[in-house]
Amino acid sequence: MSHNTFGHLFRITTWGESHGPALGCVVDGCPAGIALTEADIQPWLDKRAPGQSRHVTQRREPDQVRILSGVFQDERLPQQVTTGAPISLMIENMDQRSKDYSDIRDSWRPGHADYTYDAKYGVRDYRGGGRSSARETAARVAGGAVARKVLGEAVTIRGALVQIGPRAIDRSRWDWDEVARNDFFCPDAQTAALWAEDMDAVRRDGSSVGALVEVVVRGVPAGWGAPVYGKLDQDMASAMISINAAKGVEIGAGMAAAALRGEDAADEMVLGPDGRPAFTSNFNGGVLGGISTGQDLVIRVAIKPTSSIRIERRTLNRDLEETAIATKGRHDPCVGIRAVPVAEAMAALVLADHKLRAEAYRG
Amino acid sequence: MSHNTFGHLFRITTWGESHGPALGCVVDGCPAGIALTEADIQPWLDKRAPGQSRHVTQRREPDQVRILSGVFQDERLPQQVTTGAPISLMIENMDQRSKDYSDIRDSWRPGHADYTYDAKYGVRDYRGGGRSSARETAARVAGGAVARKVLGEAVTIRGALVQIGPRAIDRSRWDWDEVARNDFFCPDAQTAALWAEDMDAVRRDGSSVGALVEVVVRGVPAGWGAPVYGKLDQDMASAMISINAAKGVEIGAGMAAAALRGEDAADEMVLGPDGRPAFTSNFNGGVLGGISTGQDLVIRVAIKPTSSIRIERRTLNRDLEETAIATKGRHDPCVGIRAVPVAEAMAALVLADHKLRAEAYRG
Amino acid sequence: MSHNTFGHLFRITTWGESHGPALGCVVDGCPAGIALTEADIQPWLDKRAPGQSRHVTQRREPDQVRILSGVFQDERLPQQVTTGAPISLMIENMDQRSKDYSDIRDSWRPGHADYTYDAKYGVRDYRGGGRSSARETAARVAGGAVARKVLGEAVTIRGALVQIGPRAIDRSRWDWDEVARNDFFCPDAQTAALWAEDMDAVRRDGSSVGALVEVVVRGVPAGWGAPVYGKLDQDMASAMISINAAKGVEIGAGMAAAALRGEDAADEMVLGPDGRPAFTSNFNGGVLGGISTGQDLVIRVAIKPTSSIRIERRTLNRDLEETAIATKGRHDPCVGIRAVPVAEAMAALVLADHKLRAEAYRG
Amino acid sequence: MSHNTFGHLFRITTWGESHGPALGCVVDGCPAGIALTEADIQPWLDKRAPGQSRHVTQRREPDQVRILSGVFQDERLPQQVTTGAPISLMIENMDQRSKDYSDIRDSWRPGHADYTYDAKYGVRDYRGGGRSSARETAARVAGGAVARKVLGEAVTIRGALVQIGPRAIDRSRWDWDEVARNDFFCPDAQTAALWAEDMDAVRRDGSSVGALVEVVVRGVPAGWGAPVYGKLDQDMASAMISINAAKGVEIGAGMAAAALRGEDAADEMVLGPDGRPAFTSNFNGGVLGGISTGQDLVIRVAIKPTSSIRIERRTLNRDLEETAIATKGRHDPCVGIRAVPVAEAMAALVLADHKLRAEAYRG
Repeated sequence: MSHNTFGHLFRITTWGESHGPALGCVVDGCPAGIALTEADIQPWLDKRAPGQSRHVTQRREPDQVRILSGVFQDERLPQQVTTGAPISLMIENMDQRSKDYSDIRDSWRPGHADYTYDAKYGVRDYRGGGRSSARETAARVAGGAVARKVLGEAVTIRGALVQIGPRAIDRSRWDWDEVARNDFFCPDAQTAALWAEDMDAVRRDGSSVGALVEVVVRGVPAGWGAPVYGKLDQDMASAMISINAAKGVEIGAGMAAAALRGEDAADEMVLGPDGRPAFTSNFNGGVLGGISTGQDLVIRVAIKPTSSIRIERRTLNRDLEETAIATKGRHDPCVGIRAVPVAEAMAALVLADHKLRAEAYRG
Repeated sequence: MSHNTFGHLFRITTWGESHGPALGCVVDGCPAGIALTEADIQPWLDKRAPGQSRHVTQRREPDQVRILSGVFQDERLPQQVTTGAPISLMIENMDQRSKDYSDIRDSWRPGHADYTYDAKYGVRDYRGGGRSSARETAARVAGGAVARKVLGEAVTIRGALVQIGPRAIDRSRWDWDEVARNDFFCPDAQTAALWAEDMDAVRRDGSSVGALVEVVVRGVPAGWGAPVYGKLDQDMASAMISINAAKGVEIGAGMAAAALRGEDAADEMVLGPDGRPAFTSNFNGGVLGGISTGQDLVIRVAIKPTSSIRIERRTLNRDLEETAIATKGRHDPCVGIRAVPVAEAMAALVLADHKLRAEAYRG
Repeated sequence: MSHNTFGHLFRITTWGESHGPALGCVVDGCPAGIALTEADIQPWLDKRAPGQSRHVTQRREPDQVRILSGVFQDERLPQQVTTGAPISLMIENMDQRSKDYSDIRDSWRPGHADYTYDAKYGVRDYRGGGRSSARETAARVAGGAVARKVLGEAVTIRGALVQIGPRAIDRSRWDWDEVARNDFFCPDAQTAALWAEDMDAVRRDGSSVGALVEVVVRGVPAGWGAPVYGKLDQDMASAMISINAAKGVEIGAGMAAAALRGEDAADEMVLGPDGRPAFTSNFNGGVLGGISTGQDLVIRVAIKPTSSIRIERRTLNRDLEETAIATKGRHDPCVGIRAVPVAEAMAALVLADHKLRAEAYRG
Repeated sequence: MSHNTFGHLFRITTWGESHGPALGCVVDGCPAGIALTEADIQPWLDKRAPGQSRHVTQRREPDQVRILSGVFQDERLPQQVTTGAPISLMIENMDQRSKDYSDIRDSWRPGHADYTYDAKYGVRDYRGGGRSSARETAARVAGGAVARKVLGEAVTIRGALVQIGPRAIDRSRWDWDEVARNDFFCPDAQTAALWAEDMDAVRRDGSSVGALVEVVVRGVPAGWGAPVYGKLDQDMASAMISINAAKGVEIGAGMAAAALRGEDAADEMVLGPDGRPAFTSNFNGGVLGGISTGQDLVIRVAIKPTSSIRIERRTLNRDLEETAIATKGRHDPCVGIRAVPVAEAMAALVLADHKLRAEAYRG
């Protein structure tokens, strides 16, 4: 059963609500002997943290991570390392303002999980969205940072935003170095500038907008994954759709594969300059039959617009009376921006798991 | 670990290769007391079976299913019912012509899993694609038929083909009754006629083409699914991407969600004519926060063009020499057509599992 | 994969080392709407806590539990309840004296997991036994307290010590009320008095002694459990052997079943005074074919003597040199005493899980 | 969820009833490239098969196994090998005499799972015990044969019967070679002779008797297993108690550990003649902290007397009327005898799984 656990051999169990005392993540199945301190995790949390530009929520969530277990150092070890025991990561919640929640307590916010949580559980922690809050993704990012350490230097996981609302980047201008330079993880500087204008308008309108995240993984050797129901791309799809607000996922050509013809879509094989198998294209996104080809893994995930908007929408209250609701307070006008480090983390978690699964059968 | 098992409480384990003596499926976790005979399963297999029109492969696979365990009837029971024990379903392979496989034994077919299986396993049953053959999906369909019995009459799962190659249906002409009348599971008669022409051209060219499958599920009550990593849409995405040749999956608005604004994407709630909660739209495809809303579930999956084409493509052989390969024999020019009953079956499997998971917490 | 998670639908993931900052437990799969505060958990931890008599370790571990997530209360709810979200329980470690660990750092203590951890992981947190410390069982007890709330009043789980060293209780004097009155969870006052003398001698010798724990569960209805590999007694056996120092487990007649004849061992069925099925004996310990009969569940687990003793034993150091080691410091001379609440907790965890599994198929 | 699946990375899913058309086993997670034919499996089934002496049931079950998937051979491969795909094993049921089952249809046989199956499922395949029949163990033995191939020559798994009824072997006469020479898998020839007399008396009385099986595994390296909830001995206990009629399991000293003192129970470490770590005793049965020590694994399992006896016992029928029942037909007077190869198979399954799990973390 999945519940709040993701992964098989390498896995995380996350816990915590938006406005509880803390949230966290137990990383289980991490190999022993891997150097790990909080400094390996914190930068990824900082990348996800709000308040870094005017385009994301202005909440204050410093998101300082603490490692509570699973690491060890003594005078004989040059650095702190994992021991193979579960690694408990905790982030205390700092910005828990006492607020008036009567609005969202009694009414179901459209596009949110309010109604479905009530339908399923009968009780709901509505403060800041409770368990359905995007704050849970901080725990994913923390776990993903450990996964990156398991993967090591050979595997590079990079995410970028390739579309905000109707405006997509120009792929001919893709520059990975640009991603860190703008407020949008955008690999195309010109589009980033236009997005800044777009976003100002969206915020002014009290609205929000969707986005498209792309994750590219380099360095996965051929042979990770498994056929049928243990497919690498299947686990990637599962990981990506599990992210809050995700509505679609693509591997390689993705939905566009429907429009292709066989002679175009088949990634032909040739001998690479290093004398190893190479491909003339990557419509399959680095996966064939559920198993990695050694090419870049290419995954895209569509994030819907933030449901918390200042524009009033119709809804019902818990007494089944029609009413209307508008969200106050500080919200991301494009939650897709901060989904970039989350999608990277999910990719790392899937790959660390599949790395170990591949090791089990290395023979 | 997943390997060849799909599902948690209700689950299937499939086995078998394209050209082995048989293939099958063990359905485990089926409740007791459900009426079940081979006649409940066979029609769904027949729907998936090849040879039903000129647009699909002309192989002969009668796909007769046998129930080997898990059912019982005596003179006191009016009909054969499940006992709660595992239900073993077996389909014998009939059309195993002895062929010359030296081509695909030595060379990796582009777009197929040949290279990745060799990379992972070192050995490969290349006869008809072995385990990576679409024949494995017959076992899914058989298992899905049992899942439908678990779901009962209240839940209706229907699939349709909404795009072949670049040509999409006109949604204003959607007619579910039409789906059974043409060779394409197409809900739009006019488009079906055009597809017939398109497909004749594709076959003439020795090529193949992609397609888009849409599955719509009616009757799922609000409250199935679970947050975070047990999401209903997450399991749907996992199920759909696990289908051979699938490259993308969408829930509700899907990839188009990226282009939306918050006020458009939020499915507003109103009081329905029956005095129960209703929605003014369904951009979320019937799932919010991983839990069903009671609306129709809407899932789309993109199927890439069949990689087996008569047009020669470049590739490598196992000695890493550059060569070329063209596929001979009888292949589906659009494997997406027969993916429709497979996608329906996967949806049924996910829902039967989530129904039981919901029951566990009904309290 | 199990790793540090126990259970399926209802499950715990524990983390933490003996001398780290904290230890804890994530309870996942708990139904919503169950009243739960720290006061429901603390008494069970207190029962397990050391320092309560001269017969257990004199370490100071107040073991104050905090609930960090998964519960909620507002002005409309009469009490704090579970929300269905994961319940994170944390216990801070208080008594972490800075000590000289060079002895156990370099040498493998006989009977402990030192050598095997080194063989498996290459690195070992030796402070207080690290992850292999019995402190981990505090997390089990905390999780078990939540499991008891899931089971409710109808199910009563009681444990007792029935043997210390070679001296067993007289079962004809069994009195459940006596269990809370002595230092040994002993249901036989006379034996408890003798044990006190035995234990004084053992402590004087710097030795330790084994014990036998019996858990009796009343109120489980007929029909919990599952055949073949989901057996209730199988999960009980797994749960009990997972307790530190456990070497054997018995269901009902247990090992003595080997000596029985069929006509004696078959628990005959008769009509009970309430007109319901009853049994004339309980050699099967309340389980037939892996499924509960409605009788008391009876489980026994043998706990070996504490391996930490003041008597010097031969061993090797990490340089593979022969040496000798004696344990200093405060240790339980009979770890079996404090295993009683742990075994109760494990029984509760198994039963909460099987209750939910049974619900899933209630139909 | 376990249901009918056992294991994690290496696992089996078994199916089939006593009197259905067939029973079988899907072995999933078997590494590729392992030589495997039916000849590797059949001898273990023959060892378990009934009818081999007057001391076991005289039913005729030739138990011919067929491999339906997961293996491959072509002209380039010197022998048939596994491909990494699921291995489907099927055994057809031959001896399905049409019988009058009205007795066991309407009444619950004491000591059998009849009542509990009815309580759980409401419907029951009573023919020959249905799913609860010991015939299911043929599937375990078939799966265990594959597990042995995964373990290879380095690991030796041997089982023996060490007690029948009240009579135990004399361990000073233990001779592994003797096990194959008598009808009881008994390592002590003198005791075997006495058992033959005992059994003749038991059969004459129409009764049955319990037994004690011991499994000894040589060649497991130090470091297999995992702490806390993934313990090697925990999985062994789970495996053994899952065998029909098992009521207790012991690791090393087992239940007797309760009576020991610390200085006796600690297996001291010394330098072995090969310069590697060795132990002076094996009270821990080859496992410390859930991880193998490199010593022999020693596991014992108690099997209760066969519940099917000719002596009439009281019971209830489904109308809750008191009645009596005696079993007719051919039954094992000591089901413990044929449990020996089953216990060996379960040990093999646990070890193949843990071998792969250890590989995953070999680093």
